[in-house]
Amino acid sequence: MSRAFVAGVGMTKFEKIETRDWEYPDMVAEAVGAALADAGIGYDAVRRAAVGYVFAPSTAGQRALYDVGLTGIPIVNVNNNCATGSTALMLAREWVQAGLVDVALAVGFEKMTKEALNPPGGMPKVTIVDRHLAVPAAGRGWANAPMTAQFFGNAAREHMERYGTTAEQIAAVAVKNHRHSVNNPYAQFRDEYTLEQVLADKSIHAPLTRSQCSPTSDGAAAAVVVSERYAREHGLTGRAVEIVAQALTTDTAEAFAGGSDIALVGPAMTRAAKDRVFAEAGLGIEDVDVIELHDCFSINEILTYEGLGMCPEGEGGKLAESGATTYGGRWVVNPSGGLISKGHPLGATGLAQCAELTWQLRGEAGPRQVEGARVGLQHNLGLGGACVVTLYRGPAEGRRDDEEG
Amino acid sequence: MSRAFVAGVGMTKFEKIETRDWEYPDMVAEAVGAALADAGIGYDAVRRAAVGYVFAPSTAGQRALYDVGLTGIPIVNVNNNCATGSTALMLAREWVQAGLVDVALAVGFEKMTKEALNPPGGMPKVTIVDRHLAVPAAGRGWANAPMTAQFFGNAAREHMERYGTTAEQIAAVAVKNHRHSVNNPYAQFRDEYTLEQVLADKSIHAPLTRSQCSPTSDGAAAAVVVSERYAREHGLTGRAVEIVAQALTTDTAEAFAGGSDIALVGPAMTRAAKDRVFAEAGLGIEDVDVIELHDCFSINEILTYEGLGMCPEGEGGKLAESGATTYGGRWVVNPSGGLISKGHPLGATGLAQCAELTWQLRGEAGPRQVEGARVGLQHNLGLGGACVVTLYRGPAEGRRDDEEG
Repeated sequence: MSRAFVAGVGMTKFEKIETRDWEYPDMVAEAVGAALADAGIGYDAVRRAAVGYVFAPSTAGQRALYDVGLTGIPIVNVNNNCATGSTALMLAREWVQAGLVDVALAVGFEKMTKEALNPPGGMPKVTIVDRHLAVPAAGRGWANAPMTAQFFGNAAREHMERYGTTAEQIAAVAVKNHRHSVNNPYAQFRDEYTLEQVLADKSIHAPLTRSQCSPTSDGAAAAVVVSERYAREHGLTGRAVEIVAQALTTDTAEAFAGGSDIALVGPAMTRAAKDRVFAEAGLGIEDVDVIELHDCFSINEILTYEGLGMCPEGEGGKLAESGATTYGGRWVVNPSGGLISKGHPLGATGLAQCAELTWQLRGEAGPRQVEGARVGLQHNLGLGGACVVTLYRGPAEGRRDDEEG
Repeated sequence: MSRAFVAGVGMTKFEKIETRDWEYPDMVAEAVGAALADAGIGYDAVRRAAVGYVFAPSTAGQRALYDVGLTGIPIVNVNNNCATGSTALMLAREWVQAGLVDVALAVGFEKMTKEALNPPGGMPKVTIVDRHLAVPAAGRGWANAPMTAQFFGNAAREHMERYGTTAEQIAAVAVKNHRHSVNNPYAQFRDEYTLEQVLADKSIHAPLTRSQCSPTSDGAAAAVVVSERYAREHGLTGRAVEIVAQALTTDTAEAFAGGSDIALVGPAMTRAAKDRVFAEAGLGIEDVDVIELHDCFSINEILTYEGLGMCPEGEGGKLAESGATTYGGRWVVNPSGGLISKGHPLGATGLAQCAELTWQLRGEAGPRQVEGARVGLQHNLGLGGACVVTLYRGPAEGRRDDEEG
């Protein structure tokens, strides 16, 4: 397998739905145009595209990319709920690794509508949710809140009961991520909140308050993935970020074994994917400098600290309030503001995480820059379920490799 | 790249919608169970799955496969309109070719509903159709018929005007395919029609009558794809069918250049994919014995004869009535009955074509068997657009290769 590099990234600003007058082809054109310009590559050089989205119709990828140019290339439309964007990135990477193409495009977008959230014909009859709901879990309560908020809120209650995690520790995640987003011009929200404000915010499904939940967002993001040969021949190695390892996992029977609301929201998928990427790269969590992880709800950042091995199981709450996961700490987690503050257009999220890490590893993140960032980790999780963990190494590391080799 | 083989196939009977009391996980379990049993492989040996469908919710692939067994493998859900099934097959083949896994599963299904066909909230605002409709085509008429019937009906009118193709020649395709399906227990329809009956049937969009249009169907199909190493180690080479070449193409600017209703329905995608697979395999159309092609409407079989190089452009109508594409002719095209008679559950179609060709190339097609079939060609086309052409070689050919090598 050849090495694969992210040569360019681009994204739209993430927006509250029905704010901007755009359709999904408009946002895709904006993100893809930015990614190609960033790479210095024309659309005609792209030989394949993977397009991820959850709510648009079949072949929406073609509909969107045809506005960029019709070149007859293979286009594959993918969905994996909230892990859709990084599923598209995985296909693009593998196509390059396998030598099928030298330049592949990964795109993710979501144009959310009130109809998508509340279909006039009712929710689809059979979805993954009924599999989750069929589980005789601990029953920490169901309420009139969005289903995902209830899943994660119940996981938070279990974490508090089992490990003594406090509401303050969980809220500390949101305080940090909102603070980070102040410096991100692509973020949907850019306001700071105190711990007291987060705790006193409207309750969605206790202990989760509104500012601990990712919003409903519109937006698109894209990445141009190239082979090592292409990067060398086109002078791209100086800014190209290598994808050094990647793994997609789905649920196993243990998630549905019942009795654990934590197990239902996928931490075992995170652990399995983490084990595989660190083995593939020959690295460990101690080698990672900057992390974009799937904080769809504040509690999931804590569960993911544990899943990624950043702390022992049960100690994620303490890590959250320790300062170890922000600037000046051991890792900077979600410098972009994360899903909670940057926004969460489902299909775009995985590629927006990729964009942030690419900027960070190139040293181009401006006021959000994590000093000395060399290795980045991306964690993108969808209930349903799929989890993609990706490890990136910045160009400085890449150049050192070349000199050694 | 390693060689990749279809080790097992399975499908449900295709059914008129709302006939059988099943949900999509039921049909997927039936098709996957049959494919695994056919291969003699347990689900636990499957290391990745690509799942194709058009109308079900995100991560429906997980929802369906979780009922077969939860093993945490990567699952990628794909859509490419009517070419969805073979897009899933392409991913499975490439994963095996690239050495990522030894056993991959490709699944396609569709559970059509009246709501899917006529969404209560109206059709999605931006689809690929608006791109087609924006083309200032020759305007051979729009009517109150399904949009796809109008696209293909207008292409038929252009073919008649330009090449003198007759309504009888176009209807001959339907006569042949309905006749073939008499012997297919998986087919939605199994009745024969005379040419006069097809011509006198209810007009959908002239010259297309009802029996020249594929119906709305429910169903699923699956294929187990394995590496050469796995096939050898597990004694599967005697029945495994090699995928010797495959190409996915999308539209180019010429399709939308205007003025041609034929160009709008994708024959250029077919030609481009055909050129690529024959180059990859070092074969030509003269080497092919049996063909499953995308006869969503009778005229598309004629356009595809031309696109695949079975006759010069404009002479597809003559080929259709010549007898050269049925038993005893140069090729047998759509021995399964094709989409017109077997049915067309969108996501399943590409994998049902794969199943039929696998049975044919193994000599297991019973009363539908094409004598001496060694090389099979599959053509799966979706407006929107995507076209996948796949070339298969039967196990007898495979064994000869082994002996030579």
